[in-house]
Amino acid sequence: MSADATPEQLARYRASIDNIDAALVHLLAERFKITQAVGEFKAAHGLPAADPDREAAQIARLRALAVESGLDPAFTEQFLRFIVAQVIRHHQQIADGAS
Amino acid sequence: MSADATPEQLARYRASIDNIDAALVHLLAERFKITQAVGEFKAAHGLPAADPDREAAQIARLRALAVESGLDPAFTEQFLRFIVAQVIRHHQQIADGAS
Repeated sequence: MSADATPEQLARYRASIDNIDAALVHLLAERFKITQAVGEFKAAHGLPAADPDREAAQIARLRALAVESGLDPAFTEQFLRFIVAQVIRHHQQIADGAS
Repeated sequence: MSADATPEQLARYRASIDNIDAALVHLLAERFKITQAVGEFKAAHGLPAADPDREAAQIARLRALAVESGLDPAFTEQFLRFIVAQVIRHHQQIADGAS
């Protein structure tokens, strides 16, 4: 957007941000449905909630995808850690309920 | 996933998580492209990097979408605040560069 952009253009950009955010929320909802199932599996098999090797592989892969798509890899790593922290809390809750 | 789920099922769930994460990274890359443009607009017009009214409206909307899609609304609010904090850092950098 250049310096002569208008408030109407700003409104259009914000409408696109809102569309992307709705997509992000729906994808996150699907992601947590799957990690809920993973948490039940782990609880049933006595596996720990956190899996550092898996997490390291996810971070390396997402950092590479971030570079490809023009996203800050450091931010992307923080983003994944933010999501995974919530997942681990869920897994611990499932394990506590199962024990 | 039930208690008799297999490691092969766990691998399939993780493959789905990886697909969703790739989609999330690409959506975030698009989102930051748009907020970059918004930051340039704000810097050109001397507008502040943060916009509490806009942010409150986004949070209310995303919390409602979260409820609809089965996602924790409190987590969704934290998620948006996490993204917006990064956006505001970018906006401030743009404004500092423009001044």
